[in-house]
Amino acid sequence: MRYQIKSVVNKLIIFSGISGISFYVGRKSVQSSIDNNCNVSPLKYFNKPGLPIYATVSAAVPVLRNEIIDKPAIIPTENRIATIMKYGFPGLDNIRSFDDYVLSYDRKTRTAHWVFEHLTSEHVKHNNEVDRAKCDFKPDESIHPFFRADNTDYKKSGYDRGHLAAAGNHKKSQNHVQQTFYLSNISPQVGVGFNRDSWNRLESYVRKLTKVYQNVYVCTGPLYLPRKETDGKLYVKYEVIGTNNVAVPTHFFKVVVCETKDGKLEMESYVMPNEKISDDTPLESFRVPPESVERAAGLLFFDKINRKMLNKVNGKKV
Amino acid sequence: MRYQIKSVVNKLIIFSGISGISFYVGRKSVQSSIDNNCNVSPLKYFNKPGLPIYATVSAAVPVLRNEIIDKPAIIPTENRIATIMKYGFPGLDNIRSFDDYVLSYDRKTRTAHWVFEHLTSEHVKHNNEVDRAKCDFKPDESIHPFFRADNTDYKKSGYDRGHLAAAGNHKKSQNHVQQTFYLSNISPQVGVGFNRDSWNRLESYVRKLTKVYQNVYVCTGPLYLPRKETDGKLYVKYEVIGTNNVAVPTHFFKVVVCETKDGKLEMESYVMPNEKISDDTPLESFRVPPESVERAAGLLFFDKINRKMLNKVNGKKV
Repeated sequence: MRYQIKSVVNKLIIFSGISGISFYVGRKSVQSSIDNNCNVSPLKYFNKPGLPIYATVSAAVPVLRNEIIDKPAIIPTENRIATIMKYGFPGLDNIRSFDDYVLSYDRKTRTAHWVFEHLTSEHVKHNNEVDRAKCDFKPDESIHPFFRADNTDYKKSGYDRGHLAAAGNHKKSQNHVQQTFYLSNISPQVGVGFNRDSWNRLESYVRKLTKVYQNVYVCTGPLYLPRKETDGKLYVKYEVIGTNNVAVPTHFFKVVVCETKDGKLEMESYVMPNEKISDDTPLESFRVPPESVERAAGLLFFDKINRKMLNKVNGKKV
Repeated sequence: MRYQIKSVVNKLIIFSGISGISFYVGRKSVQSSIDNNCNVSPLKYFNKPGLPIYATVSAAVPVLRNEIIDKPAIIPTENRIATIMKYGFPGLDNIRSFDDYVLSYDRKTRTAHWVFEHLTSEHVKHNNEVDRAKCDFKPDESIHPFFRADNTDYKKSGYDRGHLAAAGNHKKSQNHVQQTFYLSNISPQVGVGFNRDSWNRLESYVRKLTKVYQNVYVCTGPLYLPRKETDGKLYVKYEVIGTNNVAVPTHFFKVVVCETKDGKLEMESYVMPNEKISDDTPLESFRVPPESVERAAGLLFFDKINRKMLNKVNGKKV
């Protein structure tokens, strides 16, 4: 067969049903709410065949409740996740909550569908106790090994390990910034001219919005856009790298909602090609209608906001 | 921009939060179980920000409970779905339950991630009251219009509207077979030599397994496999058709579990390229290790079955 289907030499891994590790916080909250109110065991409602409750499936090594509770540093508070996701989930595939951002993982491409962040001036200001240089890129062991990217996938690929949730957006603790170095939050990005330059310019711009707006919500992710070839037909084409076939996105998006002190909302939406971009290209030239990104990504952004209620979209009155 | 980002000329559509239409059966079941056991309203546990419960998101026009109850013919029984999904969900993205099969929808490719069926001799035997010729291909209106395939997408594309859940597997009622004609269950397939020939041969083979085995569980879906190009790098490349950019998969898979009367389980796993295949190519030559399909598809098949307990995989003792 000309196409690449990898055969597995390891022993078969035993799977163990729906474990819902990513949303243990949600589960815990729902269950304990029920526990507090009546005496029936809520567990029996959650294990029926035919009734999936969580947008994640089993990992080879399920994380047990006790293990989680032993590591309080990585338990995101329910409030923080609720704040980050205040305006809706763009999609619900394989949700993974970190302390200061939320991620939806695409097991087919070995990178995220999207990541969601909430920025304020507090989150992005300089903090002497946080040192990005101490961070290491790490495989995300909450992802099943079949679908997990590894550092070796990036080696000699020619691509940077580019952050989706930017490291510089999470300066409240060393743990927060370290969590942006999980490879689930990383995509292969062109280094010079993109990750280290124009994409970084866009990230800095979004951070600076916190000087003007009280709250900045930002959703970031990869795109795999079709392109017309000489036969007149449209094709999606992207490279995959390493033994895990990590997808190299053709483009990346950022959709931002800024909230003023008096609750007014403005939206900005950017798509940048994953290629060398001249430093003098203005960021405004990458603005696209948010619906275009939604159609291309298969996602719905900020769907709890009625778009007619937005004060501005891409700098223009709606 | 050389790539295709479609701009939206229609008015913006107002989204309305998580509506969980696909899993209303699950929701109803969970809620009514709680209702029967204690007096607190369960609804308050289901609408917290930061706590998604269902693996679907909002549609532009949410289906209301009353509308659903008005159409009893399309309410799948909980037992039937539980039977079909007895051995686990391969993934949990945008689950959609029909009367006689279950589907996970990929909003990015406008076709399914996978469909799941449970076959017995009862389900596939000839039924005078069922006439496939009376069925029409229909857009699946439960899918948000941004991500929904339409019949016009297939027109003049050169591809057949190929079934994932095969029409011939659902002969218990006209409604069952009609539901396999929703475009969410359809992928662009090469007609002559594939959909009408070798793929059809594989579908017939799976149906005939019901003569030998009491229960046959089958998961079917598209693949987008990488291929080495002349530069030595691997690329995923697939055509997209129509104004909705419906993806043309490079391959399709079927993973089958057969259950004998005494509960023994056997697994078979097939991958076929979406191209003209000679009729004399034996079906066995398309067998691949199930783990290869899992890695390529980003799915885990029959994960409630310990694979060491399988009697056979692809005809060989485990």
